[in-house]
Amino acid sequence: MDLPPPNFHCLRERAELLEVIGVSARLNTLNGTTGEGLSLNVSERRQVAEEWVTKGRNKLDQVVIHVGALSLKESQELAKHAAEIGADGIAVIAPFFLKPWNKDVLVNFLKEVAAAAPALPFYYYHIPALTGVKIRAEELLDGIQEKIPTFQGLKFSDTDLLDFGQCVDQNRQRQFAFLFGVDETGFLCFRMHMVNHGCPNMVSQDVTSTYNYLGKKTNQMLEAFERKDFSSALNCQFCIQRFINFVTKQGFGVSQTKAIMTLVSGIPMGPPRLPLQKASREFTDNAKAKLKSLDFLSCTD
Amino acid sequence: MDLPPPNFHCLRERAELLEVIGVSARLNTLNGTTGEGLSLNVSERRQVAEEWVTKGRNKLDQVVIHVGALSLKESQELAKHAAEIGADGIAVIAPFFLKPWNKDVLVNFLKEVAAAAPALPFYYYHIPALTGVKIRAEELLDGIQEKIPTFQGLKFSDTDLLDFGQCVDQNRQRQFAFLFGVDETGFLCFRMHMVNHGCPNMVSQDVTSTYNYLGKKTNQMLEAFERKDFSSALNCQFCIQRFINFVTKQGFGVSQTKAIMTLVSGIPMGPPRLPLQKASREFTDNAKAKLKSLDFLSCTD
Amino acid sequence: MDLPPPNFHCLRERAELLEVIGVSARLNTLNGTTGEGLSLNVSERRQVAEEWVTKGRNKLDQVVIHVGALSLKESQELAKHAAEIGADGIAVIAPFFLKPWNKDVLVNFLKEVAAAAPALPFYYYHIPALTGVKIRAEELLDGIQEKIPTFQGLKFSDTDLLDFGQCVDQNRQRQFAFLFGVDETGFLCFRMHMVNHGCPNMVSQDVTSTYNYLGKKTNQMLEAFERKDFSSALNCQFCIQRFINFVTKQGFGVSQTKAIMTLVSGIPMGPPRLPLQKASREFTDNAKAKLKSLDFLSCTD
Amino acid sequence: MDLPPPNFHCLRERAELLEVIGVSARLNTLNGTTGEGLSLNVSERRQVAEEWVTKGRNKLDQVVIHVGALSLKESQELAKHAAEIGADGIAVIAPFFLKPWNKDVLVNFLKEVAAAAPALPFYYYHIPALTGVKIRAEELLDGIQEKIPTFQGLKFSDTDLLDFGQCVDQNRQRQFAFLFGVDETGFLCFRMHMVNHGCPNMVSQDVTSTYNYLGKKTNQMLEAFERKDFSSALNCQFCIQRFINFVTKQGFGVSQTKAIMTLVSGIPMGPPRLPLQKASREFTDNAKAKLKSLDFLSCTD
Repeated sequence: MDLPPPNFHCLRERAELLEVIGVSARLNTLNGTTGEGLSLNVSERRQVAEEWVTKGRNKLDQVVIHVGALSLKESQELAKHAAEIGADGIAVIAPFFLKPWNKDVLVNFLKEVAAAAPALPFYYYHIPALTGVKIRAEELLDGIQEKIPTFQGLKFSDTDLLDFGQCVDQNRQRQFAFLFGVDETGFLCFRMHMVNHGCPNMVSQDVTSTYNYLGKKTNQMLEAFERKDFSSALNCQFCIQRFINFVTKQGFGVSQTKAIMTLVSGIPMGPPRLPLQKASREFTDNAKAKLKSLDFLSCTD
Repeated sequence: MDLPPPNFHCLRERAELLEVIGVSARLNTLNGTTGEGLSLNVSERRQVAEEWVTKGRNKLDQVVIHVGALSLKESQELAKHAAEIGADGIAVIAPFFLKPWNKDVLVNFLKEVAAAAPALPFYYYHIPALTGVKIRAEELLDGIQEKIPTFQGLKFSDTDLLDFGQCVDQNRQRQFAFLFGVDETGFLCFRMHMVNHGCPNMVSQDVTSTYNYLGKKTNQMLEAFERKDFSSALNCQFCIQRFINFVTKQGFGVSQTKAIMTLVSGIPMGPPRLPLQKASREFTDNAKAKLKSLDFLSCTD
Repeated sequence: MDLPPPNFHCLRERAELLEVIGVSARLNTLNGTTGEGLSLNVSERRQVAEEWVTKGRNKLDQVVIHVGALSLKESQELAKHAAEIGADGIAVIAPFFLKPWNKDVLVNFLKEVAAAAPALPFYYYHIPALTGVKIRAEELLDGIQEKIPTFQGLKFSDTDLLDFGQCVDQNRQRQFAFLFGVDETGFLCFRMHMVNHGCPNMVSQDVTSTYNYLGKKTNQMLEAFERKDFSSALNCQFCIQRFINFVTKQGFGVSQTKAIMTLVSGIPMGPPRLPLQKASREFTDNAKAKLKSLDFLSCTD
Repeated sequence: MDLPPPNFHCLRERAELLEVIGVSARLNTLNGTTGEGLSLNVSERRQVAEEWVTKGRNKLDQVVIHVGALSLKESQELAKHAAEIGADGIAVIAPFFLKPWNKDVLVNFLKEVAAAAPALPFYYYHIPALTGVKIRAEELLDGIQEKIPTFQGLKFSDTDLLDFGQCVDQNRQRQFAFLFGVDETGFLCFRMHMVNHGCPNMVSQDVTSTYNYLGKKTNQMLEAFERKDFSSALNCQFCIQRFINFVTKQGFGVSQTKAIMTLVSGIPMGPPRLPLQKASREFTDNAKAKLKSLDFLSCTD
């Protein structure tokens, strides 16, 4: 009945992990999906947050703590704790068992969490395929600062680019950060447009799980774009997609992400916790061969 | 920023509520969907459980505590607590953010919770439309007692009657309890068949939310069936359906259920907690008029 | 590039098939889902309809022709043809590529088809999981005879028993026929209630695909119910469910239904047409072994 | 009972329509979704095809006829007819009532249609949200030319950009055309990358419905991109999105598309056919006001 200890190790090493693979990140969230935050109990979530804030100082630009929970009260406790330990911000997912029926109820829920940490920047984590909360982000943003003065931006994990485009377009005057969470499918296009051409509030690196292990190639892609070498940028994008496409066909989730992070960085990420199961040996072997054939492991050889 | 206090009042009054509307229940769960269990924090869930066990003694036949949570560790803590305070059983929903990919992983998760309360009967709460965990109940039950010796039954909240029928058919030799959770749509047919004719392990009353306010009519239906007065039984069934059909068209969820329970029993159920919103005045007025026209309020007049 | 000829043989033999397995049917539809009606072109659909009307006379109680199509004009042509050849009724599925947005548009579409055969009884084929048209049947029926004077009933292929129950309840005064299309999951319960106890307009046998091969057992179930031998009726129901449950796990569709019909009756049903593929040898072998073990083949031995 | 005549007028005028709004198109499909092809009967589909081929000659670069149907035989007849009248290609949607269970069955279906017009370029119309056929385009393309020698490309109407990216990446050596069908959500990004930088087989204009009325702005966007004026390109993209975002919230489908085409071009598109309903006056008025405020009507003033 013993659970594996919360994966402090894997979590606190993200700074080292990013160092090892040769990249840095402007903004880091923790206790989110990849960090299995919702599989921890409250006391573990607090411990992880403290570790990150302590260990990450000087290494990570910003540490944002995901404090979303099904229980508003629990979420408020975590928000308050994040403020106490000196985090740089909090992020909240929409509650997804009993669901908010419309924008106003969702905003009210988020507002109550934000109010528990009134000095911290607040981010909304939009991931409708997982939560079933289909309220469009663009509508949510309309007037949100009047309700939540600390509102600072959102992580957009959806493929509705019309919605995302309108989030950016309609909020140009505000200093919101927009983080795109499905980077393997369209990162480059958005980076290109929005960061370079009039949308400085697009965060140039972000919180996607693939950045943890394909960050170097991602940076190459962005650099190629900066110098207007579009062919090289496109090749980098395709190269990343080839890997994601390969693992997607083999069943790709949080457990598999962790196995790949271990492969690429050499830092053991530890096993996932139930209801997840460790990635199979077969998956890991196949992923390793693919990483090699695409030259993604070269940096650590 | 103050939250409404956990609705202890409404919860501990279920015994009285059932008394008021003139019915009794063989098995009661709490901290489930209607009780907004997942909207409470751990300390509140413990308090509610204690209240029920204390207040319910002598009034309720069995008190089963829902201890499901996204975090296995939290679920185990609640299971242990339920045993300590003398509950009659525990119930667990499938984890539904990170989801078990197959039957074995789900059984492993449930097993770890059950093992934290090794003397308590264990119930699985099957509600795939809400959890997105589509593993068929009939497959889950195959061999489950070897993994979870305390396994005692399930609440089946789904419309796949082939799955439910096979749960009953394939486990006739075992003393499992089967609770059907979509009573408005087919309660009578199953009651008839399974309880009376060879399936004594169907629980004759159960844990559906409508029983909280339409219990008297439900009992009339069952009694009519017992004396083979099928026309009257069918009329009762249709009468219940007319009400559910009416409120369904107006937007029907947990908040609305609570408003109706208050209407029928006269015991105030208190407001729901965010992310839910109090049922509108318009809904309550319409529901009251419909209850009257269907003669569902007569018992309290 | 040659297509298999339209399966006239298999289709026109339904009368013989039902004879062989020892049952009869009050109402038969053709050119529906199992008959691959939408995979035929218009000229083939006309030929099949003519064959049925000719061959079925004296053998089948009623021959109802499915004339639904994506094109209203095509549907009208088929409806007119059905009237000309002396069919007993027409049935129409909701159009499902471009979809009707609300009840009124759907009723208008159906009305235009019905008007092309103004003397023929009209049936609506409700199968929302396949069409994606979620308009509830109970709402559709409200006032439908004022729009479609020939409206005569519906085939209800869905698991929403609240909707189905209300269709029956709210139309007791009308001579509608209600055919339940998911018989493996709940046929018995409805038969019991509705046919015997106040709803004589439930058709006692119907148009479900399983009746084509499990009709004898279905009839045993119904007879046991008539004589109030509920245990036997329940055992028959469970026996049917065991078979459906078994084949469902192996991938069960129209091709597999045809393979089983061939097995049970000895009448070759012919291969399905693309986009379907013949059931695999492995499926057929497994299904045969299961049918034997459940004693479903005994009648033909 | 009279149907509106098939909208020959609106269809044959596309050339003029494009002229009026000041753009041209490299490739035109007809009898597709916007043209309500599946709402016509076979004889009407043939008439429309003939009109287009005749009237479009000299005005349209390429006329590709959509010949997809639920019935393979009907699809083959239409393919043969397209060849006879001198069309430039045929396009086929996946059959979506009875659905192909895997890639091989789908390819076999498409192959049988293609073989009926062995000299015509063949395009696959990938639109999984409408058809429910989820087979990924990238997998479909793997080895397709060995089965369908005339295979020439696909229209990709989905938001899975990983799938689309891999279609392009893995088929660089082949002369396939890739048409992206959700242009309002990300047209520009793809255009930019793929057309200009190594993927000359991306068709620079295409078959999306918005091009029919926002084509001029689309062309401005593309021209801005060509001259590396990214800010202007982005502004054009946002401007188009603002309009689509606006109408989406009001209920946006084929009927509404036609109303807007009429507004912009001045050429009456005629009413849609059942199961569609004419766009409401309110919609049309709102859309007109929005078009004016965004300066989309200026060209016709």
